[in-house]
Amino acid sequence: MKTNPGRFFEDFRLGETIRHATPRTVTEGDVALYTALYGPRFAVQSSDAFATGFGYRRAPLDDLLVFHVVFGKTVPDISLNALANLGYAEGRFLRPVYPGETLSSVSEVIGLKESSNRQTGVVYVRSTGYDAAGEAVLSYCRWVLVRKRDPAAAIAAEAVPDLAKAVAPADLAASLPLLDPAAYDAALAGSPHRFGDYAPGERIDHVDGMTVEEAEHQIATRLFQNTAKVHFDALATRDTRFGRRLIYGGHVISLARALSFNGLANAFSIAGINAGRHVAPLFSGDTVYAWSEVLDVADLPGRSDVGALRLRTVATKNQPCGAFPDKVGDGVDPAVILDLDYWVLIPR
Amino acid sequence: MKTNPGRFFEDFRLGETIRHATPRTVTEGDVALYTALYGPRFAVQSSDAFATGFGYRRAPLDDLLVFHVVFGKTVPDISLNALANLGYAEGRFLRPVYPGETLSSVSEVIGLKESSNRQTGVVYVRSTGYDAAGEAVLSYCRWVLVRKRDPAAAIAAEAVPDLAKAVAPADLAASLPLLDPAAYDAALAGSPHRFGDYAPGERIDHVDGMTVEEAEHQIATRLFQNTAKVHFDALATRDTRFGRRLIYGGHVISLARALSFNGLANAFSIAGINAGRHVAPLFSGDTVYAWSEVLDVADLPGRSDVGALRLRTVATKNQPCGAFPDKVGDGVDPAVILDLDYWVLIPR
Amino acid sequence: MKTNPGRFFEDFRLGETIRHATPRTVTEGDVALYTALYGPRFAVQSSDAFATGFGYRRAPLDDLLVFHVVFGKTVPDISLNALANLGYAEGRFLRPVYPGETLSSVSEVIGLKESSNRQTGVVYVRSTGYDAAGEAVLSYCRWVLVRKRDPAAAIAAEAVPDLAKAVAPADLAASLPLLDPAAYDAALAGSPHRFGDYAPGERIDHVDGMTVEEAEHQIATRLFQNTAKVHFDALATRDTRFGRRLIYGGHVISLARALSFNGLANAFSIAGINAGRHVAPLFSGDTVYAWSEVLDVADLPGRSDVGALRLRTVATKNQPCGAFPDKVGDGVDPAVILDLDYWVLIPR
Repeated sequence: MKTNPGRFFEDFRLGETIRHATPRTVTEGDVALYTALYGPRFAVQSSDAFATGFGYRRAPLDDLLVFHVVFGKTVPDISLNALANLGYAEGRFLRPVYPGETLSSVSEVIGLKESSNRQTGVVYVRSTGYDAAGEAVLSYCRWVLVRKRDPAAAIAAEAVPDLAKAVAPADLAASLPLLDPAAYDAALAGSPHRFGDYAPGERIDHVDGMTVEEAEHQIATRLFQNTAKVHFDALATRDTRFGRRLIYGGHVISLARALSFNGLANAFSIAGINAGRHVAPLFSGDTVYAWSEVLDVADLPGRSDVGALRLRTVATKNQPCGAFPDKVGDGVDPAVILDLDYWVLIPR
Repeated sequence: MKTNPGRFFEDFRLGETIRHATPRTVTEGDVALYTALYGPRFAVQSSDAFATGFGYRRAPLDDLLVFHVVFGKTVPDISLNALANLGYAEGRFLRPVYPGETLSSVSEVIGLKESSNRQTGVVYVRSTGYDAAGEAVLSYCRWVLVRKRDPAAAIAAEAVPDLAKAVAPADLAASLPLLDPAAYDAALAGSPHRFGDYAPGERIDHVDGMTVEEAEHQIATRLFQNTAKVHFDALATRDTRFGRRLIYGGHVISLARALSFNGLANAFSIAGINAGRHVAPLFSGDTVYAWSEVLDVADLPGRSDVGALRLRTVATKNQPCGAFPDKVGDGVDPAVILDLDYWVLIPR
Repeated sequence: MKTNPGRFFEDFRLGETIRHATPRTVTEGDVALYTALYGPRFAVQSSDAFATGFGYRRAPLDDLLVFHVVFGKTVPDISLNALANLGYAEGRFLRPVYPGETLSSVSEVIGLKESSNRQTGVVYVRSTGYDAAGEAVLSYCRWVLVRKRDPAAAIAAEAVPDLAKAVAPADLAASLPLLDPAAYDAALAGSPHRFGDYAPGERIDHVDGMTVEEAEHQIATRLFQNTAKVHFDALATRDTRFGRRLIYGGHVISLARALSFNGLANAFSIAGINAGRHVAPLFSGDTVYAWSEVLDVADLPGRSDVGALRLRTVATKNQPCGAFPDKVGDGVDPAVILDLDYWVLIPR
């Protein structure tokens, strides 16, 4: 058979390495589309002049564009038969990526855990994005619930990886060139608030909302060469439990990040992803809002230019976030769709 | 508070200067998106080979792409709490902008006029787009009706600026490099009609229509980093008088300009905006048509390569323009959505 | 009259040559949009590093992007008053096109055949795409049914051209630089199957489906500067037999080609179009599927790097292709919308 049926749970082997198709040169064209699809306004990624003044060699790609491109490649091999994307951990953005670079992805199977009913299992992978010279630019773990082809199939070896609760600040320090915070023009960047202005426990409602259309999420998801059928095939999804196309979870992450500019305008770079959960699905016509909480602030060893904020950003659908919708008893406010724990860098 | 609530009328001071976030490097990616969103076919902006043969150093950006990028930056500071965009004047495109250049915007408050009911006021600004070296590339005035936070707030100083009825032809002359009209291949550009073929009073129905989708105007408006909530938030706009998302007025200007190719194919550059009014709102699903009238023709001092046409372009929704829908008694045909008075340059 | 009414059947002259507006520089921005609109994953077009390793000077444009850009220019002169796009033949992609090149189009009228009712006629053209130096990059024939302005108008000369049933393999050989099949990394390209793995008669269901939105096909069709009114004007098309906007046939070709990656991942280049028919129209909301049959395999004279597969790709709407929907008696399965016969190149 020449077409890709995707792997089922019993097809994965603990410790195996999977090189993914298709390598992708990311360009100014991708940057323009990313801007048009999400509306980010962080000055470092928006302006070559601003970025070079600050210490980059030019405006780098939005970190999440890099993430989505690296992620997209893993879909045909890892999650084509996935029922759910369960979580993320140990995400590290290792260096800036610039237009013109070529990215490819490799995943290592770091965990396998069959479900008790033997119909499915959880696959844990560490996926790494590489540039054309083979240098790693991004690494992250994710785990997905994957169907078995044959419930009776035996699983050779199982293990649940021990993943860090958070990326250590020391591991974020090398992700950027040395920058010049005095050259960072806060007025031009859109906010006077720097590292020292944020404190743990602070909550920020990002105020604005963004309604999502089918054409938008499809255009984005194809841009990332993510082939998951549920995002594109209205006919096939008619018979699923949602009855319609499901929006790629990464689309929500990018919308929440772009909305977070309003309150976090100087948090110019994502350096790590500690944890993440797609709490509920998003559909066309829904409006996305977001709020963030500062979980921690951290110095970076050897760097006096930038500091790190550990943020928890919660995105909702069809509910503004002035009241910070969150956990409700043992559950979660039904409007919540994303709960992301990550590190951003911000000038001192 | 770290989020931007936008300025209310009493927050503006006559004569103050506002530097806007976010600087933006415009690229070939933006050009491709602009083409895909509006469908312009002017040869100078479409082809490097055509543009260099004519005298440019390469294909310049569409003038309206420059306008929208410069305009978008002003929104968070000027019009986030605006109720209406009332008018434009003294718009001058000062030189061609090329892919790779970085644009930023500054506005000067040139007028303030409180409404008699003290609930709102009109803010007049002159906004200027600059390149990375600080050279101005575009300047225009606009005035918007802005809410007051507190109706009782006193206004320090008021003034209504005296704006020119039209940009003088002499002020258009320096906007382009010297060009070679003999090298301008009219067949390749799509029309034999040059400067001498147009006369004041001539009316042109641009024939074609373009239906607008939510995804299209949202993608465009985010590309311009224009953050006005009314364009993006279907939930919040449900309670407005329109009950739905409103399309950015600049989207209509760009559609009308692209449609005007059919009849004005050689009017390759917009050099000035004399006046403009968004007569009525446009919504997703509406179809835009346009017609133009030649108001004036002008020589440009010191230039024998190109001449200027002063045009009035009227755009309508859901009504073709064969009958030139226009003023009706004291009012305007209800199909009219835009009335724009501007200068274009055209080879002799 | 300054606007273009389009040519009617009696306006064409056998043997005449028509230079089309508007020349177009294709860029990385167009490439990104093409990826975002169709989701192709062929490694050669996706990655500069992969393409240069294989023998290209960088990643070339998708062949169909070149086709659509060349085609789009012909619309205002050839098919503005067309009732149907009847067929294609003798399509040859003559060399790779790279970002930064400028394309223009010229058509020769090679056939004219008035309909028996004298209301319409078939116009046959050979359209050629040229680079800025005047070198041909693409050539193809198509024929369209065009309205007459005046049924009584006499036609000076008529002729039906004798078009080849298929492009000869020898005519495909010069279309690419010499490549290094040993440097072609099949794992990175997404499939182990090379030239020798395909045999005439083999059928492949491409499995995946793609639902099309109005915004998507409009954005694509404008990107190609194709001005056919039926794709854009919801109001005018309300009174047509379909009652709505019709999707550009080329959009279906590009979707089918992108879907065909699943089963034909190494068929990296389209070298010729033998025949093609838009069997039925596609509308927004429809889901496109595709299957292919290998009609022939061919060596290319003087080349040991790549071979050619002659494919027939059938696209359907709202019907998956596991059962290979095809001819039914004298007719065709009503789900079929495209039947395309073409040559692709694939590494040995």
